[in-house]
Amino acid sequence: MSSAPRIYVPVRLQPGKPAPLDANQSKYLLRVMRLSDGDPVRVFNGQDGEWRAIIIQDSAKKASIRPVEQTRDQIATPDLTLLFAPLKKTRTDFVVEKACELGVQRIQPVMTEFTQSSRVRSDRLQAVVIEAAEQTERMDIPVVEDDMPLLKALNAWPTDRPLFYCDEAGGAKPMQETLSGRAIEAAGILIGPEGGFSAAERGRLRGLPFVVPVTLGPRILRAETAAVAALTLWQSLLGDWRDHPYLPETQNG
Amino acid sequence: MSSAPRIYVPVRLQPGKPAPLDANQSKYLLRVMRLSDGDPVRVFNGQDGEWRAIIIQDSAKKASIRPVEQTRDQIATPDLTLLFAPLKKTRTDFVVEKACELGVQRIQPVMTEFTQSSRVRSDRLQAVVIEAAEQTERMDIPVVEDDMPLLKALNAWPTDRPLFYCDEAGGAKPMQETLSGRAIEAAGILIGPEGGFSAAERGRLRGLPFVVPVTLGPRILRAETAAVAALTLWQSLLGDWRDHPYLPETQNG
Repeated sequence: MSSAPRIYVPVRLQPGKPAPLDANQSKYLLRVMRLSDGDPVRVFNGQDGEWRAIIIQDSAKKASIRPVEQTRDQIATPDLTLLFAPLKKTRTDFVVEKACELGVQRIQPVMTEFTQSSRVRSDRLQAVVIEAAEQTERMDIPVVEDDMPLLKALNAWPTDRPLFYCDEAGGAKPMQETLSGRAIEAAGILIGPEGGFSAAERGRLRGLPFVVPVTLGPRILRAETAAVAALTLWQSLLGDWRDHPYLPETQNG
Repeated sequence: MSSAPRIYVPVRLQPGKPAPLDANQSKYLLRVMRLSDGDPVRVFNGQDGEWRAIIIQDSAKKASIRPVEQTRDQIATPDLTLLFAPLKKTRTDFVVEKACELGVQRIQPVMTEFTQSSRVRSDRLQAVVIEAAEQTERMDIPVVEDDMPLLKALNAWPTDRPLFYCDEAGGAKPMQETLSGRAIEAAGILIGPEGGFSAAERGRLRGLPFVVPVTLGPRILRAETAAVAALTLWQSLLGDWRDHPYLPETQNG
């Protein structure tokens, strides 16, 4: 049973040195989980691995944690970036949650010509990735960038890094065929909006040497499905799903 | 522009022979899409391919379609079944929608020891898969079975058909490694509930000769993420994502 709640604390972790929790985390542990002084939690901060810790109840609404010992090493997430055009709120949250679970380092919302949704609030998405990272047993939190226009994101892209672009038309090869046998340390995956890219955007993408068009099967996938599918293929063929994983026992393990 | 609405009609399609639409479809075309007599639609029925058709407005609230000509051949979906333990309503709908997009023939909800959700309504899920099939450009509708206990589903499973079981523990190999180089015509994928399978269920699964445990990377995936990831890997390595696909022009293509 490793059913102790797992929480992200953005401070350095040292044995015995208490770290304060914010109001939401305190409320979650004290009110929702009904924990109190001395109860065990698991904490991570993105750099010091995972620690066993205990709760210190400072007041009815305020708690800290005291790290006891490090139980897992810090692990780096593959150097993978997801660029995606914002969708409706629920589907955007879904994409961001799944990108965190599937293991990206960076999430870059991009505004395209046919993007129907308004700009995203990166502070709200930050809360989504923190919760997802806690749940998915990651050791770090992906960076959620502020949204920017697609063309600006392309101009800023490191030219030595492939950007796989899920293109439904134009005769691209299946993604697994394109990835097979390659050795790539760092990459990006670009998912368009529901309406696809405009002709001008597609022309621009196709003209960039680092952009690699790929397809994801014979059916039309919704944007969030394409995001999960493309990240799965990258992680399975080139990323950290290739190893036999270490996994802690799950709650009902 | 192939932006004509695409709808499923559960009747045989013959040139010139009108087929009635139900109240919801009529309302969708006449009220939501504001279409009327003579407007183009695309229709499919799961056996006669896709047809160009026109709307016949029978009354203010009632429409039929008249097939004009067949425009795409009927295509079979890979013989793949998803077995999954029902989740909360939104996430169950999500799994079913994604299974349809990713291309399964059959969806079998299974009740497990740690399944938190109540039984699913297969009539509601049927509406979800029809809408997903229309949107994803499928030529058929996956079958959504009534839920049944996991052990009953395992007893009914054809023993010559591999059932890939996503097992977070126990040292199974990565799914892509397990699938690589195999030739499998028909298979199933089994996704457990959020709490995992019970010890008894895991023992039972591990003892069945057709059950193949696999893992999906070093992080804990939510059930719906695991479903999309596993279906993606199967389709990419053994299913119909291996071919360079035919795809119709999308709306903004």
